[in-house]
Amino acid sequence: MNRVTAVRGQRIAEVRLTPVLVGDPPLLNVQGVHQPYTPRLVVEVVTAEGVAGVGETYGDTSYLELARPYADALIGHDIADLNGLFTRVNEIGVDETRVDHAVDVGGLRGVQTADKLRLSVVSAFEVACLDALGKIQGVPIHTLLGGKVRDEVEYSAYLFYRWAEHPGGAGHKDARGAALDPAGIVEQARRFVDAYGFRSFKLKGGVFPPEQEVAAIRALAAAFPGHPLRLDPNGGWTPETSLRVAGELADVLEYLEDPAPGTAAMAEVSRGTRVPLATNMCVTTFPEIREAFLTDAVQVVLSDHHYWGGLRNTRELAAICRAFGVGLSMHSNTHLGISLAAMTHVAATVPNLDYACDSHYPWTTEDVITARHEFRDGRLTVSDAPGLGVQLDHVELARLHRRWLDDDGTLRDRDDAAAMRRAPEHADWTTPALPRW
Amino acid sequence: MNRVTAVRGQRIAEVRLTPVLVGDPPLLNVQGVHQPYTPRLVVEVVTAEGVAGVGETYGDTSYLELARPYADALIGHDIADLNGLFTRVNEIGVDETRVDHAVDVGGLRGVQTADKLRLSVVSAFEVACLDALGKIQGVPIHTLLGGKVRDEVEYSAYLFYRWAEHPGGAGHKDARGAALDPAGIVEQARRFVDAYGFRSFKLKGGVFPPEQEVAAIRALAAAFPGHPLRLDPNGGWTPETSLRVAGELADVLEYLEDPAPGTAAMAEVSRGTRVPLATNMCVTTFPEIREAFLTDAVQVVLSDHHYWGGLRNTRELAAICRAFGVGLSMHSNTHLGISLAAMTHVAATVPNLDYACDSHYPWTTEDVITARHEFRDGRLTVSDAPGLGVQLDHVELARLHRRWLDDDGTLRDRDDAAAMRRAPEHADWTTPALPRW
Repeated sequence: MNRVTAVRGQRIAEVRLTPVLVGDPPLLNVQGVHQPYTPRLVVEVVTAEGVAGVGETYGDTSYLELARPYADALIGHDIADLNGLFTRVNEIGVDETRVDHAVDVGGLRGVQTADKLRLSVVSAFEVACLDALGKIQGVPIHTLLGGKVRDEVEYSAYLFYRWAEHPGGAGHKDARGAALDPAGIVEQARRFVDAYGFRSFKLKGGVFPPEQEVAAIRALAAAFPGHPLRLDPNGGWTPETSLRVAGELADVLEYLEDPAPGTAAMAEVSRGTRVPLATNMCVTTFPEIREAFLTDAVQVVLSDHHYWGGLRNTRELAAICRAFGVGLSMHSNTHLGISLAAMTHVAATVPNLDYACDSHYPWTTEDVITARHEFRDGRLTVSDAPGLGVQLDHVELARLHRRWLDDDGTLRDRDDAAAMRRAPEHADWTTPALPRW
Repeated sequence: MNRVTAVRGQRIAEVRLTPVLVGDPPLLNVQGVHQPYTPRLVVEVVTAEGVAGVGETYGDTSYLELARPYADALIGHDIADLNGLFTRVNEIGVDETRVDHAVDVGGLRGVQTADKLRLSVVSAFEVACLDALGKIQGVPIHTLLGGKVRDEVEYSAYLFYRWAEHPGGAGHKDARGAALDPAGIVEQARRFVDAYGFRSFKLKGGVFPPEQEVAAIRALAAAFPGHPLRLDPNGGWTPETSLRVAGELADVLEYLEDPAPGTAAMAEVSRGTRVPLATNMCVTTFPEIREAFLTDAVQVVLSDHHYWGGLRNTRELAAICRAFGVGLSMHSNTHLGISLAAMTHVAATVPNLDYACDSHYPWTTEDVITARHEFRDGRLTVSDAPGLGVQLDHVELARLHRRWLDDDGTLRDRDDAAAMRRAPEHADWTTPALPRW
């Protein structure tokens, strides 16, 4: 085969979409509790020459409804035409009336627009195309992004209040036990440190009244002196409460994440504290940047390459943050090793990665790759293998897809409030109006 | 040769730096007049496997002084490690005290900092690496930037007040004649339309009192009704003058470029007019963006990929403009066909290219590429050939380099005021303090 021809102009001949349900522990947040299984979508693109690339994104129904016609539209698309991925997706209609309802998860994923839904879908295809391109050229994805500027990416321990098991013993079991008070959180942190070497800690808050969560952070600070600490109540507090917590924890917090809901409230908090404010809720799309940066509402943006439309868009977000002196790190929620590999590649190329990235990965013990990522000293080594550097485990993929097929529809859209109601003591739980405290 | 090895990890084995002097007509601006020859630097990188790539940037002494040690530092550098180009250049010291003096051209290139000097040098190396990478992979540079979103890029006619020839008949001669009044500008515009099909017109102003330049724009509007018109006095006016001109020309101006000097003055103008303000002077680096965008000082940024550090940084600038709802187009001054090819590639990939790009190219009749670019209907077709799609003309390159070698140092640093003083009637010319009117 001619080398130039092999590299140039490979076109997408096939796209495989595989929705899966992935085991998730009963982790608590302001909206409720994680379901026993969470939906993800695995995207495989295959070129006419037989090179395959893989990507991953949210798997809720709205994403699937867009991914299917999009996959059809991409047959024949030049795999190197990454800019064209955005042109193509904009040609596909999205039922605006369904966007909010189906994708919102009570606001945990920030603003919901048809454009953001499109970008979240594109992200999986972009990563899959980059994976295939990397394999074709024999280079890792970080090289396709201009080259790594670091050999390792640091991640933080993502601590959650949690139950020991799901209501009725549903879903996956683990031996990690409940964590519902400061001592439980410290114990959880200790396990994470022992297993993965994390140095930074993020506690998902908004679960208990703020003073209990302040006590948990204080307990972490006492147990791990000098380690960076973060608290994220997902917009659960008023500006007043946010400022009170910021004042109480100013000496130990690296940043406070989304204390209050919305840019205006965040700006109000920001004006009253020197604790940096981070967000993965009020700045999750390019159109939201302007107001937030103009009002100095946030000092750290936690990017999620799914929301932002892939790895190249994440680099553009990083450039915007750099130009405006706003910090950057990365968000994570329930995902598989494909997306963790993608995060790690882009994180390796961003000069202004100012904080250890979030990683939900240790909570997700199921995966569809043959060799799970292993944190050492809280870090992942950046892969230099071609493409993403992961191999699909087709047996596991089929097993998790079978679970999705077998589901009666209950779990195919993530709904933390509905999951909460399945606990008899929370049978009347409704999504709380924010701010709650 | 193994295909993967061939594609992966080609390293720079040789860098050739060739300073040249390029013929330039006696074009007038607020600072003076263009020299008979202007310095440019041609950069060739060659990999160990013998693949060569070419780039171009400013050729003044300060650029050369940085380019030389930088070239040495890049021997052995992976040609695909584009992010690493920035790391490497930051390791090279720049004599800050010399930056202003040697590079400023009286402010025409905007703020001068050591970082901007570094980026301007990097830009030539980045384009050269992209050219080589494209050749290695058999793809055009626009593919390396994610793929073109248009097949043609539109340029505007760049009109100048000018003398018929340089003082004493120095330098290159052309038959285009003087243009020193509205009729002369209209005639110049007509020639450009006939030869190249341009639809938009930009007049370099700041040369005569504003009312004369207003008259020239009015004459263009009468001669070419409905065509987009722009006026650029290079910061030559006070905010009051700027607002008066904006008011007088509001019905025909597409935008007003750098009417007043500095972001604060531009913001003042912006508050008083609905005519969009463009800049290539007060926003030429990433650190300048924040204040300008926060104060709504500019509505259009005219990027120059040399200033911004190359084609990928230009795409990042475009992303910032997109996020903030600020328009984007491109700046051009005396350059060769290498840089025009580079501009065209990146312009082809930017979705939010809102205006026809500037092009100084028709004024530069000498070149170092074998086939000059040809505007048709005011547009250039985007090349799909590997890399930049241009071939170096080594004979011409040697000839223009010989001119640089033979120069006694007078023209090796662009100095429009010194060039002005060579006209006997302007023997006492000094760089005017801005604003002048």
